[in-house]
Amino acid sequence: MTEPVKNLRFVLARRPEGPIRPDDFRAVHETLPALEPGQALVRQVFMSLDPAMRGWMSDNRDSYVPPVEIGETMRSFGVGVIAASRIDELEVGTRVSGRFGWTQHAIVGAEDITPLPVELSLEVAVAVLGLPGATAWYGLFEVGKPKPGETLLVSGAAGSVGSLVGQMAKAEGLRVIGIAGSAEKCTWLVDELGFDDAINYRSDDVAAAVKKLAPDGVDIYFENVGGELLQIALNNMNTNGRLVMCGLISQYNATDTVVGPNLMRMVTKRLTMQGFVMTDHLGRFGEFARKVGTYLQQGSLHYRTDIVVGLEQAPTAINKLFDGTNQGKLIIKVS
Amino acid sequence: MTEPVKNLRFVLARRPEGPIRPDDFRAVHETLPALEPGQALVRQVFMSLDPAMRGWMSDNRDSYVPPVEIGETMRSFGVGVIAASRIDELEVGTRVSGRFGWTQHAIVGAEDITPLPVELSLEVAVAVLGLPGATAWYGLFEVGKPKPGETLLVSGAAGSVGSLVGQMAKAEGLRVIGIAGSAEKCTWLVDELGFDDAINYRSDDVAAAVKKLAPDGVDIYFENVGGELLQIALNNMNTNGRLVMCGLISQYNATDTVVGPNLMRMVTKRLTMQGFVMTDHLGRFGEFARKVGTYLQQGSLHYRTDIVVGLEQAPTAINKLFDGTNQGKLIIKVS
Repeated sequence: MTEPVKNLRFVLARRPEGPIRPDDFRAVHETLPALEPGQALVRQVFMSLDPAMRGWMSDNRDSYVPPVEIGETMRSFGVGVIAASRIDELEVGTRVSGRFGWTQHAIVGAEDITPLPVELSLEVAVAVLGLPGATAWYGLFEVGKPKPGETLLVSGAAGSVGSLVGQMAKAEGLRVIGIAGSAEKCTWLVDELGFDDAINYRSDDVAAAVKKLAPDGVDIYFENVGGELLQIALNNMNTNGRLVMCGLISQYNATDTVVGPNLMRMVTKRLTMQGFVMTDHLGRFGEFARKVGTYLQQGSLHYRTDIVVGLEQAPTAINKLFDGTNQGKLIIKVS
Repeated sequence: MTEPVKNLRFVLARRPEGPIRPDDFRAVHETLPALEPGQALVRQVFMSLDPAMRGWMSDNRDSYVPPVEIGETMRSFGVGVIAASRIDELEVGTRVSGRFGWTQHAIVGAEDITPLPVELSLEVAVAVLGLPGATAWYGLFEVGKPKPGETLLVSGAAGSVGSLVGQMAKAEGLRVIGIAGSAEKCTWLVDELGFDDAINYRSDDVAAAVKKLAPDGVDIYFENVGGELLQIALNNMNTNGRLVMCGLISQYNATDTVVGPNLMRMVTKRLTMQGFVMTDHLGRFGEFARKVGTYLQQGSLHYRTDIVVGLEQAPTAINKLFDGTNQGKLIIKVS
């Protein structure tokens, strides 16, 4: 590295109450130090914005993982290219993924990075092979235990996790019904992703639609949203059904006391509801990547990205996850 | 059978709305027909009253099993003695259990009865070896998956299921905290059943008490009650904890829309909540009876019965299950 590298990153400035605001983050302009032996410089290309970030910003509720500290670089998963290396056998130009954070560049150790398969584009890597894809895979197969012929209902179906859950379930021979927040998203789910049906929760009577579209009931409900959708799902679950609790995005910004559904049917229908956090299972990432690689080769996974250009847009763009305006996997193009 | 047998039984007269009322049942005085070949006459001695009965009486919600029809004998589990037999090798005087219903006598086929082990008294059989004991066993071991050293919290702890769950868990080396509805019940749980602690939900601040008594959190919550207790349990569950959904007795008589707890911690604490109905697993009754037999021999199971004398008391006595006034397993002494 011959010249000092100028860097922009965002740190957490304060913990949000209610919706995230741009000034919950603070820009830091800095010049990076020279690399020590055993370090490398990553130039981040794509950075993933995910609903879990709302939890990481907060310390007044239980979160998946420890919160980001005030003044610390905001946490995120991304993909990039090695721009300089003092790590043995790590060449400049190597494409890697890692938790680089909201930053243009990151100084990393060998343990902080995972080289990407050569045949995978950076965009596919961040959209499908990142945390959302792993979450979809683990939740569907390990928690949901799908069987061909069963019916799966998924909320947040047009989101980064939900869209992959539905496609994986279709590839496994299930009937798949998605719930999403616009007619356009519903059309995309059915026409492009191959969902059997989609319900627009903003305009449809969801309870009536689920009854009509799943007349024999629902075997697996994959929950990304919470609120009244969970009650509707419970009301339609078949005996021995499984509720995969991936996220409750409708509650992440709630400041009031949240109530949940009547759980009587947990007993009467012998249901199992299980929460999980993919980061507990990172040791199984290889297994996931092989499965998803097969799907990608078969052409059974489609995705779309909602790419916002420029790291400086991240503090505003993140709210697209919570107001439903993102169209596919929300990604910041950093460089 | 030489003389005609006069019989009293109770049929369901109407479906209750809200609390059960005595005139939801109707007495039928009858003379029983002579036995056909392959039939036997059971004189019922003890009949179990159980919370699940509220569900069986109703058809406007999901219940465990099909509802009792209007005009049909009210369903129940009991023990009795063979008073007359036209079944080969079934001798008069044999002690049996079965789903005889709210009746003094029942005409049964061989498939309707299970002979009782000779060393077991009829009272132990109806109190420990009936549906509540099997429910405690299946829920604790198959759903709760207890490990020595873990902490178990059980609601309805002085009830027929809860008191056995706590004792079985103690026998397996768990720390056990019960929630019950009177100081007297709490004293009984700790002093006689060997629970580590008990919380009186009518006088104690349950949330504060659970925090104090389970400072390292709760690994298994065995739910018989529902309502705010479930929220308190959720708030104290350890990572990878299990919630065993046995019953929600606080909701059985509810006519309003019931709301449940905030389920966010299902995700953040990676919890599993599973409902079950013991009658699905009657094929494992032998396994259960052997395990409970061992406990009884070790002296590690204590119980108490709340015996009401006379079948004609059943329509009134059943409400003791719902107003918290029963002291131990509620049983009708039929004869």
